[in-house]
Amino acid sequence: MKRLLAEVGRVLEVKMEKETIKCVLVDLSGTLHIDDEEIPGSVKALERLRGSGVHLKFVTNTTKESKRVLHERLHKLGFAVGSEEIFTSLTAARKLLEEKQLRPLLLVDDKAVEDFEGVGVDDPNAVVVGLAPDKFGYNFMNEAFSLLQKGASLIAIHKARYYKRKDGLALGPGPFVAALEYATGQKAEVVGKPQGSFFHSAVREFSCAPQQCVMIGDDARDDVAGAQNCGMKGILVRTGKYRQGDESSITPPAFHVANDFPAAVDYILSSCSLE
Amino acid sequence: MKRLLAEVGRVLEVKMEKETIKCVLVDLSGTLHIDDEEIPGSVKALERLRGSGVHLKFVTNTTKESKRVLHERLHKLGFAVGSEEIFTSLTAARKLLEEKQLRPLLLVDDKAVEDFEGVGVDDPNAVVVGLAPDKFGYNFMNEAFSLLQKGASLIAIHKARYYKRKDGLALGPGPFVAALEYATGQKAEVVGKPQGSFFHSAVREFSCAPQQCVMIGDDARDDVAGAQNCGMKGILVRTGKYRQGDESSITPPAFHVANDFPAAVDYILSSCSLE
Repeated sequence: MKRLLAEVGRVLEVKMEKETIKCVLVDLSGTLHIDDEEIPGSVKALERLRGSGVHLKFVTNTTKESKRVLHERLHKLGFAVGSEEIFTSLTAARKLLEEKQLRPLLLVDDKAVEDFEGVGVDDPNAVVVGLAPDKFGYNFMNEAFSLLQKGASLIAIHKARYYKRKDGLALGPGPFVAALEYATGQKAEVVGKPQGSFFHSAVREFSCAPQQCVMIGDDARDDVAGAQNCGMKGILVRTGKYRQGDESSITPPAFHVANDFPAAVDYILSSCSLE
Repeated sequence: MKRLLAEVGRVLEVKMEKETIKCVLVDLSGTLHIDDEEIPGSVKALERLRGSGVHLKFVTNTTKESKRVLHERLHKLGFAVGSEEIFTSLTAARKLLEEKQLRPLLLVDDKAVEDFEGVGVDDPNAVVVGLAPDKFGYNFMNEAFSLLQKGASLIAIHKARYYKRKDGLALGPGPFVAALEYATGQKAEVVGKPQGSFFHSAVREFSCAPQQCVMIGDDARDDVAGAQNCGMKGILVRTGKYRQGDESSITPPAFHVANDFPAAVDYILSSCSLE
């Protein structure tokens, strides 16, 4: 009887923890919008969520769109989002550089360079790799290799194998990171989703416990499993890159699966205790 | 007593096998010459070796020097070597393409392309990667990736991480092979030393058993361990890239360690039974 009560207590405690949410992380492309179209109802849903008083952060893996470009797109679509609420894999890379006082050679797209404005790049002691087709030639790669040989740190914005282009699949930054890893025997520090450090870094300012944070996204692996692997909760939405059965591809299963962002917001507002 | 006799018999048999040599494989750079200088005494030593009647093959890992260029250099240095006696990693790649009837996209140096003359390259179903700085840009790499996605075979001339240039170490073909492997999940078929297939392919025409072949080279790993791992014998010479202690870096140890190529030839002529 004592054990049964303890068990019931444990279940209730877990249940209560599940329902306490202080911070919501929201993916962008595929979750709030697809290209230049809002996922219907998402602007209003975001307003309802914001009205509840939870902390918000908009998180995305990008290696070539600066925070400014992302902010402009959201603004144009009607989303009331502050620039400082956007946290991308580029932001995470910058944070890491600042924390470790590193001066990077930036193998990132020219459009992304503005997110590193003010970071010293003289006499580099780090190599940051994003998706930068123009910089994946032999000479740039060799320059990176030389720095790594001298002890520079290797930082990958993310390690995606490939991405979808209009003309088919094209190489992502991952293969070029793998090339430098193979050449040097050094493992890159990956800063984007699904790394736990990415999620922790995104919400650090709020001083919330991981279990008080929930991530909403369309990518079962990078958004949901990534967040859940570091103690947060994950809500999978059936929009964007979602494909039937994605929810069963991850263990443990998502905290919740919702048809779209508005449904995810409704779930949080009705089923969780917000602080 | 019976077991003891059997053991003695086994040892004697091994001893006799060790001393029967029908074929000698000889590395080029670092073994017969360094750049444009003969390793002293090597021209004469090669003549003595050839006089013994053993089969000869000159084997080297190269991704940018054609057989013609190598032959011209040897000829200029005074070595009596037939073009057909030279077997390189490019030859091995060509053999593999012909055996499997593959049509390659050649990511190899322009100077090496002549070794693939006559090989069909329309509608490619294979990707061959050598050291080709001009072809390691994003577009070529992406073209290779597209073919691999459609089921093309990935063939690496070799997978060296880097090589020595006048201005320091520079990336070899290995990292770019690793990039395509990471992108596709497909392992490359490597054709150069130290692959067993390379050594077997080099001597196939002679119909010798592996233990009747001996490889002479300055690279403990690629020449000696490579040959010995496929049942041949290996003689390490203390010239070229040899560094003190290299002999103790491989297991099993080299069949023999000689000061240079002439000493290696003397050892074979005096201590092995030649057929």
